[in-house]
Formats: sequence, C-alpha cells, structure tokens
Amino acid sequence: MTDVLARLVAELGDAVVTDAVALSIAQADKSGHRSASAPLALVSARSIADVQTVLRIATETGTPVVTRGAGTGLAGGAIASGGEIVLSTMAMNRVLEINEADQLAVVEPGILNGRFNEILGERGFWFAPDPASKAISTVGGNIATNAGGLLCAKYGVTRDAVLGLKVVLADGRLLDLGHRSVKGVTGLDLTALMVGSEGLLGVIVEATVRIRRAVPGVVATIASYFPSVTDAAAAAAAITAAGIQPSVMELMDSASLEAVSTLLSLPGITTGEAHLVVQTDGPAAQQEADAALAILHSLGGRASLSTDPVEGERLLAVRRSMHPAMERLGTTLIEDVSVPRTALPAMFAEIVRIEQRYGIRIPTVAHAGDGNLHPNFIFEGTEVPDMIWQAADELFATALRLGGTLTGEHGIGILKKRWLGLELGDDQLDLQRQIKRVFDPQGILNPGKVF
Amino acid sequence: MTDVLARLVAELGDAVVTDAVALSIAQADKSGHRSASAPLALVSARSIADVQTVLRIATETGTPVVTRGAGTGLAGGAIASGGEIVLSTMAMNRVLEINEADQLAVVEPGILNGRFNEILGERGFWFAPDPASKAISTVGGNIATNAGGLLCAKYGVTRDAVLGLKVVLADGRLLDLGHRSVKGVTGLDLTALMVGSEGLLGVIVEATVRIRRAVPGVVATIASYFPSVTDAAAAAAAITAAGIQPSVMELMDSASLEAVSTLLSLPGITTGEAHLVVQTDGPAAQQEADAALAILHSLGGRASLSTDPVEGERLLAVRRSMHPAMERLGTTLIEDVSVPRTALPAMFAEIVRIEQRYGIRIPTVAHAGDGNLHPNFIFEGTEVPDMIWQAADELFATALRLGGTLTGEHGIGILKKRWLGLELGDDQLDLQRQIKRVFDPQGILNPGKVF
Repeated sequence: MTDVLARLVAELGDAVVTDAVALSIAQADKSGHRSASAPLALVSARSIADVQTVLRIATETGTPVVTRGAGTGLAGGAIASGGEIVLSTMAMNRVLEINEADQLAVVEPGILNGRFNEILGERGFWFAPDPASKAISTVGGNIATNAGGLLCAKYGVTRDAVLGLKVVLADGRLLDLGHRSVKGVTGLDLTALMVGSEGLLGVIVEATVRIRRAVPGVVATIASYFPSVTDAAAAAAAITAAGIQPSVMELMDSASLEAVSTLLSLPGITTGEAHLVVQTDGPAAQQEADAALAILHSLGGRASLSTDPVEGERLLAVRRSMHPAMERLGTTLIEDVSVPRTALPAMFAEIVRIEQRYGIRIPTVAHAGDGNLHPNFIFEGTEVPDMIWQAADELFATALRLGGTLTGEHGIGILKKRWLGLELGDDQLDLQRQIKRVFDPQGILNPGKVF
Repeated sequence: MTDVLARLVAELGDAVVTDAVALSIAQADKSGHRSASAPLALVSARSIADVQTVLRIATETGTPVVTRGAGTGLAGGAIASGGEIVLSTMAMNRVLEINEADQLAVVEPGILNGRFNEILGERGFWFAPDPASKAISTVGGNIATNAGGLLCAKYGVTRDAVLGLKVVLADGRLLDLGHRSVKGVTGLDLTALMVGSEGLLGVIVEATVRIRRAVPGVVATIASYFPSVTDAAAAAAAITAAGIQPSVMELMDSASLEAVSTLLSLPGITTGEAHLVVQTDGPAAQQEADAALAILHSLGGRASLSTDPVEGERLLAVRRSMHPAMERLGTTLIEDVSVPRTALPAMFAEIVRIEQRYGIRIPTVAHAGDGNLHPNFIFEGTEVPDMIWQAADELFATALRLGGTLTGEHGIGILKKRWLGLELGDDQLDLQRQIKRVFDPQGILNPGKVF
C-alpha cells in the first residue's frame, strides 16, 4: 500500500490527496451509506494522462480504483473503502467544444450538468438529461449512471444524448468510442454499453453529447390537488391518454404533500390530498396546457395554470421541496423503482400495503409521465434497519411483478446489488460478469459494486 | 452435415427447408453480393422453442447459424454459405401486444416494419424507425442493424425505440433483456448492446418497443431545386441553423436528380441542378415550413410547398425514385457513410474528387438532417470491381477524417469488414471480439460477418 501511494505521488505529485477530510468524504455519497474505512488516497486527475497513470499503477499493483464525480449518487456506486484509490474527475471540468451547427458538444466528465446548461443557455442550447441533482452532479456521473430526471418521457434518458466517449480502460489504455455523426453503426455499440455502467468497465474521460436548441414558445405550468393519490394518478393517466405530452408530470402522495405543506406552510391543503404538477413546452405548450387543465378540472382537481416563468417556478416549488421536507421526518432511504405508466396506481396501492404491514411511512413521489417512483423510507438513526430493507425487498419484488425494474435512474451501486439477480436472472447476470471481465480482467474497477 | 440435417428434420419437421430455390435466395441480400455456395438448410422458425432447438443442435454439432429476416440488408450481413444453417424468423410475425396507455408494443421479429405501422396506424400510433426498406424489411432486422432512415434527426434511430428484447443465445438459452418501463438502469445495458449487433451475439425472438402517438397537425412538404449540390447543402444547413427541425430533409446531387428526371420525365430540370426536399410535421409544421420556404427562396432555390398529403407524396416521389433510377444506370454499390452535418459540403466535394480520380460516376443522396450519405457506385457486371473498392476505400477514409463513420445505418456485414479496424482501432476491435466470445464461445453465430 505504501508502495502504491509512493508511486502515485512520484508520478502525479500534488494531484494525490491524502487529507483525512477528503478521504472521509469519499466514503459516502448522497444515499447516506458510508464505507467502513477510509480509502488509500484520492487522485484529482487534471488530464486524460493523469487518469491513464492512475490506472497503469493500479493495474501493476492490483489496487482497486473507485471513479468519482461529485458524489451525488444515491446507490453507493462511488463510495470508496480501505485500500482503494479514489479517482476524482471533478477537476476535469472543461467544455472543450460547442458546435451549434452539428448540435453537439465535447466535454470533460467533471463539469456540472447545471453549469454546462448555463454555458449552453447563453447560446440558445441545452443538454436534455436533467437529474434532480443537476446543479450539483457531473455530466460524467450522469453518463456513468444513465441518469434520468423529470423530462425523460419527452426528451429521453442520458443514453439518448451520448454520441461518443473517450474511456480509459483498467490497464490505462485510451479508447475512443462512438462518433460525432447523428448515426453510426460500426461494430457493437460500446458507447451505449458504457452509459450506465457505474464505473465497472472503464473511466469516462471525455464525452461527445447531443445538445438541443432551446425549445421555442412558452412553458406552461399547472399545479393541481386531488382528494387522493389514486385520483391524481388517474388524472395523470388521462392526460397521457388524451395524447398530451407534458415535459414534466410529477405526482406527490399525501404523506409527501403533507410534509412539504408543513415545511412551506402551504395554505389550503387538506389532509389526504395529493399533488400533480404538469408542465408543457414547445409550440403547442399553451394548447396542451389548456387541454390538461380541462382534464384536471373534470376529474375533480383544484388546478391553476401559469405561463409566467416566476409563477411557474413557484408552482414547481412544492415538488422541489420534497427532499428538505423528508429530512425533517428522519433519515431517508430514497428508492427508485420504475413501472409501466399504467401500473402506477397498482404500485401506489402496494406501497400503502407495505406501509401498513411494516408500520412505517413511505412518502412517495413519482415521475408520472414515465412511471418512475421514489418511495422514501423514513427511519431513525444512520444505518438502514433490517426491517426497512425487508419492506424495500417487498417493494422491489412488487415492481418486478408489475413489469418494472429495481431502479429507474439511480443505479445498483452497493445498495441494490443483493437484488440484481432477481431482475436479471442467473444467465444474464453471468453474461454481465463475463463482460465486466473482458474490460477489467483483474477486477480492479469499482469492486464490490453492482455485482 | 447429414447428421445435422437429420437432427434438424427429426426435431423440427417441415420447418426445415432444403428446397434449392429457398437456399439460393439465402445466399444473397439487397447488396447484390452473393455467397459462393448454398447453405445446408433453412429453418423457418415458428416459435421461440424452434429457435432454441436450432441453436441447441447447432451448438452440439458446431454448425454455423445465419439469422435472417427479409434479406433486405445492404451489407451482406444475412448471407449464408455452404455448411451453414439459415435461421429465418420471417414466420414469427405476430404483434403480441399493443399497449396504448404504456405506449409500447411487443412483437415477434418477423413482422414487416410497414405492416406493423399499418396495424399501429389503425389505433393512431406509429413506430418511428423508418428505413427506406420499411415496406419489405422486418422489425427484427431493423433492430439487428440499428436501422436508421429519413426521420432520425427528429425521431431517433432504432436503438432509441427498443425497451426490451428476448434473445436466444448460441447455446439455446433464452434471455430476457430490458424492461417495459420508460426508464431502467439495472446492470449493464445489454439491450442496447444487442441493437445493431448484426446476428453476432444471439437471435432476437421478441421485442418490446416504444410506439408513438400519431403526430398531430399537418405534414408540410417542400420540394426545391438549386443550381448545384453545394447550394442545396448550404440551404439545408441554413434551415438547421434557423432552428427548424424538419422531420425529413433529403438532398440529391445532380447525377441523382438527372437519373430520376430521365426515369420520371420531370419537366424543367436543368443539367447540374440538385434537389432538396424538406418535410415538417407537428404543431409548428406550417410555421416551420413557411420559414424554411423563405430560406430556400432567399438562397436562390426554386421551391414549392404543399400541405396536401397527395401532393406531398408527389413531391417526395423524386427522392423515392432514386433506387429504380440507379438500376437503369448499371449495377450499384450503395454506400452509407455518415458525417457531422457541417461536413456534408466537404464530403460532397470529396466525392466529386473521387469521381474524377477514378473516372466513375457516384450519384449521391444524403439524409441532410443527420449527415448520412448514400453514394451509389455504378459499374457494369455483377461483381464489384477492385477499382470500385479502391474508390470506396478513399470514400471511407475521407468520412473518418471528417469525423464520420463507415456506416450510418446499413451495418458492416461482409462488405465493410476489411475497414472495421480503420474506424475502431486495434484495442476496441479486440474488446469487441472478446464480447462476441462471451456470447458465442464457439463462434457459430454469423461467422465471417463484421469481424
């Protein structure tokens, strides 16, 4: 270990950080999970060459490497432990190219999604992947987890925005995957394979991504309240069935709304009410919003519509206050199951059943446009109690039974690895492990994660 | 070999075809290329179980298997030779489910893209992947090649439309990949890896795909003519730069237009003129078309716009007549390079240079919205002459130099395998081969293709 550290310092100088605070931070992410011991060192890579050096030394010494962006993950995917090198790509944060005519940009992995969007916004462009963490999460991390967000039903997931990647392999070799053209089918699609691979296959050191021209027209926001989450879910389904394609459609159950109502001192909320917020954009935004408003009213919702940007943000603030509101209730395990849209009501009913069975509260929000739910398991203390994991286990099994998935956008990381086989089955799991070995025969990249 | 055939017949009965005509058809595809000898047998699979039986027998006897849909490929990817089993999925052509609320459908691989769209159209839905071959190509083949088409810049490529796949592995095991939800990030994205894998990794036996609600509003079509292909390409670039997102934007150079003009006896075409056809759809279709028309006029184009569906089809007929027009000129090698949009003028200039250097004609059409070009190398006889391959070699090298790719939507198959390493490099090529071995350790799936 001393030898590894000495070699890192000899080759990388002050890019190598052994400060106790920095190492401690790398033991955790936003999931609340924390590793048992501090990693060996953190290398703050400044260049592709630095990343290659780290991986060459790691391969030669058999040292595990945990690649890490901003550490905003919710599945423990970038948490490091004793004996591991943390490879931070946060300092590689430049926008290398913005090509408006080709509608693409080339970025380093450490740039924050929000910052990248600010830079693009100045030119009338944007980057569609929009995880809730976008202000504080990196584009590299978004790609490594195939991040979702609020806009996916209309604007796709991160994978759909990635044209090409530069990746450093476990042994330090640099790969150039994908292309700058819209289309390209030369060989197997390793770019797509790399998206969402959670640090298992290589280190993303550069990305060529699609950028979009700013959507023309107004953004219309509708905030609505319904007597129950079932009513709100039915309203969301009716909007989709009417052929309306909202950019955002977010559902909050009564426990979530109650917590936010308390935090923000919202007036006029009745116990048991649920919240549905809908945004439309593009040339038909007003027309779609008017149609959505009529549906919400006809189904018994109290609803108001605004096309004023400031008022729109105010209407969205209820949904955006979910996380701070949850923090007041206790420690939170934020789950992330995804089901087909039509299974949302069934999934909400099952969550109520699980709440009752375990005597716990599970305030839940959902990206109603795409069927992705975030049930928040609330508990006391810092470690997730076994009973909560049992309840989560029932949640996962239910999502799979309803045709869904363990994780819609957060990834497997450490926290969900024990359920991986339940979704994939033995044959697929075995294939995935073999693919991992093709890229990383020594198993030094993010060991103990996912598999 | 006799033993293999006997086993196939014993287990699959009259699904096994040894008719000389059927076997001869399987020696070729729409590329014009033909294998040297007839395959051993063709199995017309009726079910997943049939596919599993074929692969089990193939694995036990070490017999190569070439999976084949409608045989409309343009790269020789589904061509079979002596000693190989042709596994046809054409008879597995049912639509198993259409779920309007979840905006997905489950289909067998043999359904024709056009037929699938007819069925969806009756319900007000459609399937976005739109290769020019859609009337005669299968959804399974579209997925196996990650087919593109005219609408990709606006509506994505086939990969973006695939949520999940059932795949039979080389040894006959059945895998269930992906999900029915919009989002899902459980483990490595093997669904995306399978899309475009050209029969190398497994046999697609069922697909869960996104379907879209019919686009509301009119479809506006503009046919325009410019003095030169450079002028027409500049007009296409100006339309994109103005923030207009056409659904279709197709460019024909003067040689292409001249050939079609002769075929259709078009009036008023002057020698040297190039053609640009633009379609817009969606709620802003009329507005975008008006803006595009103004741009085309301002840049010196003769242009006319129609929102009448019949007139729109008439305007598109020029582009649609490209293939029959080419057939009159001689035998055609249809190439498929793709470059960033802004490199289109440079690529057209290079094609002129290659024409002059080799003394050949290369009428070229381009999907101008996404930068995908189809240069048509014209020659006499049935085999592609070496000189044509030398010219194509220059074409490929040029596309790569301009930041593009060997193939935008047709695939590698047999015809482009010798150039694969040029684009991927040795390290990536080696990784791809190793991934192939993970799925197919004996190398019985589509041997001699791609790698």
